[in-house]
Parts: sequence; C-alpha cells; structure tokens
Amino acid sequence: MKGRIFSGMQPSGKFHLGNYLGALENWVKLQNDYECFFSIVDLHALTSTYEDTGKLPEHIYNMALDWLSAGLDPEQNVIFVQSQVKEHAELHLLLSMITPLSWLERVPTYKDKLQQLGEQGKEINTYGFLGYPELMTADILLYKADTVPVGEDQVPHLELAREIVRRFNYLYSPQRLIFPEPMPYLSQAKVLPGIDGRKMSKSYGNEIPFAAGPDELRARVRLMVTDPQRIKRSDPGNPDVCTAYTFHKFYSAGQLERIAGDCRQANIGCVDCKKRLAENMVSALADIHQRRQNLEANPERVREILAYGAERARKVAAMTMEEVRAAMHLA
Amino acid sequence: MKGRIFSGMQPSGKFHLGNYLGALENWVKLQNDYECFFSIVDLHALTSTYEDTGKLPEHIYNMALDWLSAGLDPEQNVIFVQSQVKEHAELHLLLSMITPLSWLERVPTYKDKLQQLGEQGKEINTYGFLGYPELMTADILLYKADTVPVGEDQVPHLELAREIVRRFNYLYSPQRLIFPEPMPYLSQAKVLPGIDGRKMSKSYGNEIPFAAGPDELRARVRLMVTDPQRIKRSDPGNPDVCTAYTFHKFYSAGQLERIAGDCRQANIGCVDCKKRLAENMVSALADIHQRRQNLEANPERVREILAYGAERARKVAAMTMEEVRAAMHLA
Ligand code: SF4
Ligand code: SF4
Repeated sequence: MKGRIFSGMQPSGKFHLGNYLGALENWVKLQNDYECFFSIVDLHALTSTYEDTGKLPEHIYNMALDWLSAGLDPEQNVIFVQSQVKEHAELHLLLSMITPLSWLERVPTYKDKLQQLGEQGKEINTYGFLGYPELMTADILLYKADTVPVGEDQVPHLELAREIVRRFNYLYSPQRLIFPEPMPYLSQAKVLPGIDGRKMSKSYGNEIPFAAGPDELRARVRLMVTDPQRIKRSDPGNPDVCTAYTFHKFYSAGQLERIAGDCRQANIGCVDCKKRLAENMVSALADIHQRRQNLEANPERVREILAYGAERARKVAAMTMEEVRAAMHLA
Repeated sequence: MKGRIFSGMQPSGKFHLGNYLGALENWVKLQNDYECFFSIVDLHALTSTYEDTGKLPEHIYNMALDWLSAGLDPEQNVIFVQSQVKEHAELHLLLSMITPLSWLERVPTYKDKLQQLGEQGKEINTYGFLGYPELMTADILLYKADTVPVGEDQVPHLELAREIVRRFNYLYSPQRLIFPEPMPYLSQAKVLPGIDGRKMSKSYGNEIPFAAGPDELRARVRLMVTDPQRIKRSDPGNPDVCTAYTFHKFYSAGQLERIAGDCRQANIGCVDCKKRLAENMVSALADIHQRRQNLEANPERVREILAYGAERARKVAAMTMEEVRAAMHLA
C-alpha cells in the first residue's frame, strides 16, 4: 500500500526556479510513489499577508499554473486550494481545544519569524499566526497523511503534529487510532543561487521566475555574474567563484569538466559560456514551458482542475471529520 | 425592522431554575421583539470539558428540551447546535488572522477563569481556550447580530467583538460595512439562591433542576432553609433572612405582604408556608412542565427541531461567509 503525503505551499506570487528545484521538482518525483494531497495553502498565507489580500486570487492561479507546468498530475494527485475545504478550519478549531498554548509558543520558528517579519514592518503578532502550526497539523491530519516532505526548519512543526496526534488518540480513540503519526520525508534540498550569487529571492531582484519563457531565461542568464577577476577574454577564469558555473552544475551535467577546463584555459569567453548555459536551461525546461503554454491557452482549465481537486479533497476530509466528530461525541 | 440577536449557552448538563430566571426567561421575552439565533454552543463547552465529552450528546439534547419547554419557538427563532454549522469554525479561523494576540490575552475573564478552573484541577491553558472570545465573536458576526444579551461579566467580550468588527471592516470592506458593531443588551439579572441560601449551583447540591416536575419541586422546597431562629411553630419568623421567602418573591407576587405578615406574627408555620410556595411554583411552571412532557413523549421531535434549526442557520451563515470570502479575496 502506498503511503500518503500532504504538502502545501503558500501562494506568495514569487515562485522562482530556486523554489522549483528546492521543493516542487521533488513533489513531481514523489507523485509516483505516494498518494499525494498538494494544497495551495492560502489560509496560511493570511497569517502574514492578511493586510493585503487583493492579489491572492492571481497568486493562487499562478501557483496552480506553476505546479501543473512542473508536471504534477491532477488525476494522480489531489491538487486543491486549502480555503475551499472548510474542514481545515473545523479540524483546526477542534484540535485547538486539546493543544496547550505552551506547545505552540515553544515552536522555534515562532519567535524567529515574528521578529523577522516585524523587522519588515509587518505586524503579525496575531492569534492566527500563533496557530500556524496548529493549522498545519489540521492540514496533515485531515487526510491522514503519514508522510510529509519538509525542510529541516519544519521538523519541529511535524514534531508538534505528532504530539497532537498522540494527545488526540489518547483522549478520544485509545482503542482504534484515528490518526497515524506523520513522519518527515527529508530530501536533500537543492539550493540554486540568484543571478548575482546571493540567495535567490524576488526581494533581491536576482531571481529567475519559474514562469520565465526561453527569451526571459536567456536575458536573465546574460545578466548573471561570473568570475569577477576575469576581465579580458584572454584571462583564465575560475569556475569555483562563478555563479554561471554553479548553474552549469544544475543544467549542464556531463559537460562540467569540459566547461571548467575551457574556462581555466580561457578557451571560451563568458558570453559564449553563458549562451551555452542558457540553451541547456531552455532545453531542460522545454517540457515545462510547453505545458505552461498549453494551460495558458485555456485559463478555465486551471480553475476546473482546482474545483475538481477541492471536491476530491472534501470527500476525504468529510470522512475524517465524521470519525473525529464521532470520537469526540459531537453530534 | 427588527434587530437581530445571537445568544448561546454551553450544554453543561447542569441547567437549573436559577439559570432559567437568569437568562432563558429573558430569551423567551426577547423572541417577540427580535429575530433571534439561539445556539447550544458545544464548541465553547469543549474549551473546558475537552477531556470528557462522553455526556455531550445527552447534555445537548437536554438543553434543547430545556429551551423548548421554556417556550422558545423553533419557528420564530433559529435554534441550533453550534458544531453543526461549520461556518463558525471557518469565520473563527479567518478572524484569528486579524486579531492581535494581546487583544485576547487582556480579556479580563481570561486569566480569572484560567485560575478558577486550574484550582478545580482542570488543565485548560490551551490555544482553544485563549480563542474563546474569538469564537464568540465569530458566532455573533456569522449572523450579523446587532444585539447580544449579556451579563456584566461578558461586556468585555463584546467590546472585543466590536474591535474585531472595526478592524475587519477597515481592512476588507471600508466602503460597505459587512458587519454591524454588536451592542450589549444588559438585562437586570434575576438571581435565585439555592435551597440552602447560597448561590444556586449543582456543585453545592442546592439546585432546583429546571427539569424538575411537580413532585420533585415540592420535595426540593420541603428541604429549603427558613429563618434559623424560628424553632417552634409559635415563634415569630423573619422573612428577610428566609430563603423560602426569597423564593416567594419570585413566585408569590401579590401575596408577599400577607406572607410576610403571617410569618412575623406566627400565623403560619414554615411547613405550610413552603407548601404554599411549592404550589405557586408548580403553577408558575405548569406550562413549562406540560411542554416538557409533550416533548419527552416524542424524543425524535427535538432532534428534528435541531436539524431544522441547523439548516436555517447554515443558510444565513453561508451567505455571510460568501461576503466575507469575497471581501478577503478568497476564491
Ligand atoms: S567562462 Fe563560464 S565558468 Fe568561466 S567565469 Fe566565465 S561564465 Fe564562469
Ligand atoms: S413562615 Fe415562611 S417566610 Fe416565615 S420563616 Fe417560615 S418559611 Fe420563611
């Protein structure tokens, strides 16, 4: 029997190639081995963006487009928007009754993120923000997921989810455990830098949008920083300090030794070297671009897929809530 | 146009005559002047009784029986169980995103109740308990109630609800206010003592159950304490220190002067005086007893009424949530 995965992403409108390699690419692989529930978690997004929700619909639509372009199959997986399934809120509320306040307060990311966003001038010290990991727990439990792909920083969230599962099972279903304890699926996160060599982030303006087509890809690669010591075409370069070379590692497998050699011996200029990179990236992303074009030609299709996913998610969620309500003796 | 009321009671299984006079009797009057939503708030009950929910179905059923016996009309009012309307959880979650943690922490009843229940050995320092007034706000807003009958101690809860309304309107619907600011309806609370003269409470064993029929009423009145100085039948009594006399004030209007006179002049013995009281109470509660008997003869009827109420509540709640979701730009 296949394991079951729940995973979500916030629709922030900033999805870039680094995000794809860091998580989405992994989901595309996982869909073959697990029964997957992938959710655009707009309710989570509210914890930090509640003051400005005007772009949420656009961001949700674009995230669905990103996922489907990346190759997530809407039949094989359940792909849906969190807020379209009311049971997330319902389970969140019920779990809130059995969750000691201190469990939430001691989640390490809580104080960190509060401070970080506070420095950006965002006032997010809300009841909802404190409940973030509670909502995440409800997300996972609603589909009885046993596996959750997470980064290192989210391991404490999952530990909390397991504590809540144990408490729920102990209080309400000691005989027949309703929820499995979800386990983390830790994958080696691939970290792609931005075109200036720093962390890729839209706020630095150094990102390559995941939605970038071939021309935009080429333009972004042209702007990429290279070995700063290599001034003239005849200067030998050092690929180890070159951002373009870091990208080659992701997109030019099999040609790496030659590229490094050509660089060190000044057999190739940076302009040509980056042209080669750009073409390799265009090839690597060709299927994704093709899928995106097909979807963009038919915008209703994306909405239909999300409606279909919400319907399927609701069915599973409703069954879980029936069990939960019975266990808690709610009518 | 009639104003709209939301009010709720927790199904604690301890409903007594004091509770009836303190609140329910008032609801029965309000139903003629307002459009009323009366809810058995089982989700609120979970904040303090989550560890033992086994009796919840029974308590909910009995509370419905209490309300209907008291004369709440299930056509004129919307009478329903809170957890049967998922929108309460949904709005609670959305409001949680815009509610500063400090607003909840500073609600005066929060720390008090925490301590009080802590002394009873109840561990209720949960996320859900902190969110109690948030859920109460969601209850009220879901039906756009403009009026909320409350006791003095709940005025701060309502002040919080108004703050949340202002914040919501400011953030999401500055042009067309979605929610009215709910105003408290303060009624002179009638306080009936227990049969031993202390506060009426099931935990003291001094209560008169609201469900008590004529025989039980008579038996409880027989046990009622009277003027402790009046030992012999020939001793004059002092009605001012007599619990039975306090009850006469509620149930023997028009006969008070005679009763007080008879007591002070030892014209009547306590046994007879209490018999008179008992019969007055039996008369005053006759309609209520009759309605209860009719309902008890047909237990399915109560469930049907609750299902009907939930359906009507859901319709109004769903309309509100549609507006809320649109205002917040949720799909
Ligand atoms: S030749 Fe290529 S690897 Fe070498 S510095 Fe230029 S861009 Fe970088
Ligand atoms: S006669 Fe009536 S009022 Fe007087 S002490 Fe007895 S019970 Fe109370």
